Amino acid sequence: MSAGWFRRRFLPGPPGPAPRPPKPRASPVPYRRPRFLRGSASSPGPADTARRPDARPVRSPARGRALPWNAGYAEIINAEKSEFNEDQAACGKLCIRKCGFGAEDDQEWLTLNSEEFLTGHYWALFDGHGGPAAAILAANTLHSCLRRQLEAVADGMAATPPLMHLSGCCVCPSDPQFVEEKGIRAEDLVIGALESAFQECDEVIGRELEASGQVGGCTALVAVSLQGKLYMANAGDSRAILVRRDEVLPLSTEFTPETERQRIQQLAFVYPELLADEFTRLEFPRRLKGDDLGQKVLFRDHHMSGCRSYKCVEKSDLKYPLIHGQGRQARLMGTLAVSRGLGDHQLRVLDTSIRLKPFLLSVPQVIVLDMDQLQLQDDDVVVMATDGLWDVLSNEQVGKLVRGFLPGNREDPHRLPEANTRTSPGLWVGHL
Amino acid sequence: MSAGWFRRRFLPGPPGPAPRPPKPRASPVPYRRPRFLRGSASSPGPADTARRPDARPVRSPARGRALPWNAGYAEIINAEKSEFNEDQAACGKLCIRKCGFGAEDDQEWLTLNSEEFLTGHYWALFDGHGGPAAAILAANTLHSCLRRQLEAVADGMAATPPLMHLSGCCVCPSDPQFVEEKGIRAEDLVIGALESAFQECDEVIGRELEASGQVGGCTALVAVSLQGKLYMANAGDSRAILVRRDEVLPLSTEFTPETERQRIQQLAFVYPELLADEFTRLEFPRRLKGDDLGQKVLFRDHHMSGCRSYKCVEKSDLKYPLIHGQGRQARLMGTLAVSRGLGDHQLRVLDTSIRLKPFLLSVPQVIVLDMDQLQLQDDDVVVMATDGLWDVLSNEQVGKLVRGFLPGNREDPHRLPEANTRTSPGLWVGHL
Repeated sequence: MSAGWFRRRFLPGPPGPAPRPPKPRASPVPYRRPRFLRGSASSPGPADTARRPDARPVRSPARGRALPWNAGYAEIINAEKSEFNEDQAACGKLCIRKCGFGAEDDQEWLTLNSEEFLTGHYWALFDGHGGPAAAILAANTLHSCLRRQLEAVADGMAATPPLMHLSGCCVCPSDPQFVEEKGIRAEDLVIGALESAFQECDEVIGRELEASGQVGGCTALVAVSLQGKLYMANAGDSRAILVRRDEVLPLSTEFTPETERQRIQQLAFVYPELLADEFTRLEFPRRLKGDDLGQKVLFRDHHMSGCRSYKCVEKSDLKYPLIHGQGRQARLMGTLAVSRGLGDHQLRVLDTSIRLKPFLLSVPQVIVLDMDQLQLQDDDVVVMATDGLWDVLSNEQVGKLVRGFLPGNREDPHRLPEANTRTSPGLWVGHL
Repeated sequence: MSAGWFRRRFLPGPPGPAPRPPKPRASPVPYRRPRFLRGSASSPGPADTARRPDARPVRSPARGRALPWNAGYAEIINAEKSEFNEDQAACGKLCIRKCGFGAEDDQEWLTLNSEEFLTGHYWALFDGHGGPAAAILAANTLHSCLRRQLEAVADGMAATPPLMHLSGCCVCPSDPQFVEEKGIRAEDLVIGALESAFQECDEVIGRELEASGQVGGCTALVAVSLQGKLYMANAGDSRAILVRRDEVLPLSTEFTPETERQRIQQLAFVYPELLADEFTRLEFPRRLKGDDLGQKVLFRDHHMSGCRSYKCVEKSDLKYPLIHGQGRQARLMGTLAVSRGLGDHQLRVLDTSIRLKPFLLSVPQVIVLDMDQLQLQDDDVVVMATDGLWDVLSNEQVGKLVRGFLPGNREDPHRLPEANTRTSPGLWVGHL
């Protein structure tokens, strides 16, 4: 990616006729629930349904159908908040060959390749917005992108430290030493493959949505276990935690307009054209108005991390803030509550041609957990969930719930709904 | 600061005649050692001087002259490594008035103002390079910049939470609530004042050096105690730690071309003109050569944090790397070992007109320590030192040394040389 590419791709060209919406060339993405829910029926919530008539029914995998790694899953039937449930999920065994690509099996979950060099597991949660299409495409596509990206670097991962040249040839005799001195490890290549897979999947979603005349985006939270490591890749406001007997470890950080303020403000500083004279990149405690003109007011700009200062309010400061609102209400350009994710290629600020995509990153943050080093126990559990859960329960509360009902139910794939009835879809529990 | 300002300031204009070095308008900055060393004599190193004839003499404040907060200081007499000792230091009591500015007293250390609103303490270490001038100017100037910046926000700090409008007027009745919801605290204003003071001081140094026809730069490590908090501001590769009975807490992080790789690569991505076709922003395990052409080689670009990938080597990848070398040998554009600091406005890559300044940040990272919350004890000590110390001793080793010789010597301003004889100048110890 070059700066020139970015300019051509995102910056407004000379004024011309307003773009007409493209005519769909493909049929819409068919709606479905995750494959592993086939044959399952929705069950009423836990015992308190009688007491709480508003308790929403919960769906989880059919009895007797175990998910890889003894994982559990539960989702709440969409309560007419939108026409379709915009959340999706996927899981599967990940089989990486050293070269070439194999065909996918159409199984309960996806066996990505039959001939093995490395095997691992893959779990993913996608929280859609603006329609279910992006999340469905992500659930259908991301694992294939990841397999391709991992296979592209598999040869390099075959050595320790990884090979400097993918071909395995040593142009300098001390090449392995250079790689070692830079501290490059096989896990850096897996992280790179995850980042590239997210970007590739984002491009696929952009093409597919454009072709079918659909819109929308989704967050993505992906766990991959490979060679004794757990990789947690997150783009959006979902969250993963590791619940252990005596502690709860966060495995991800949320990406919202608030948490990514500096990155977003900096992009607006470098490319002010992206704001189309409609927004101010500066952050003030509230949206300013005429009476504030000429006063010295608290503010924060892109280069200020923990700090604040005062500035004399000018007319341009009265524009709508690039990032506005607090906490759950914080929005990018008054439109979007997340700052990373997949899709949203066509998303524009209401009644304008201002696009949000340049401010959205499809690159995930990847956190690596060394499972051997952590000496994980049978009761250690990873919880992955969309914001619906974390809006009502803290990490510690979820930890307490999991610790409370897991013992004795370890083999029961239906053990999770108990924890999930008052929250949005998307609660994963994988025993490590 | 706007993107336009950055372009005008740093990007090359249309080609013209090579700039002639400006004629000095002012006399060179006079060389001196820190004020608080007046009257002190250099002492031989510790008891082992006889055994180690290469032990360098150490200088510390004259006996009976206590530094604020019972701090200690020691520096090694420059061993002809350069014509002058390029390191400098300053300390003083910091007196902030709510409005207006007072005159400086020419005391042993600087009493910044006689009329008080807030009082605190200030300690600073500057590690110069390319001559002593920048470090001397920083030691002479930074505290005044800080006082000015703190006084400019003092009115806002008078309330809890800080006032949204510096004038104290409330344009919206709920303005205090907006400030509170954003989580803005008085310490954010102090951090902002520190950041602004570093930038102001950097501009002063740039002007003064240009006027006197001198060159050079310096790192800056500044500690400020104010209202029960300790602020540690760092721009460069010096380091501060807090030594406690059972632990050693780092109070700063180092800024070098390696630790700031992503920021530096990103700037080169946005403004490739800064590389003048002489450098590649991509990071490879070693500098590539002709034989690598066409091969797939490990690399890292600006958007890649922990990850690596392979790319097919093109001709442009053979250019000199923007960041080259490992650890202590890592250099920005083959020239500079630090990525933040003051000065260096005229610094260019050898035999070219390529300037390094756009890649150097004068903004410090500020870490805040709540001294009340930490329940600091008498034996808790802050150690501030330039890279000379940290190149030979780890945090833990320094912690052990300090714990070993402090008890019993608590009131002795000469207690520090014992720890400092084999290192570069600049070891500060302040009892909290």
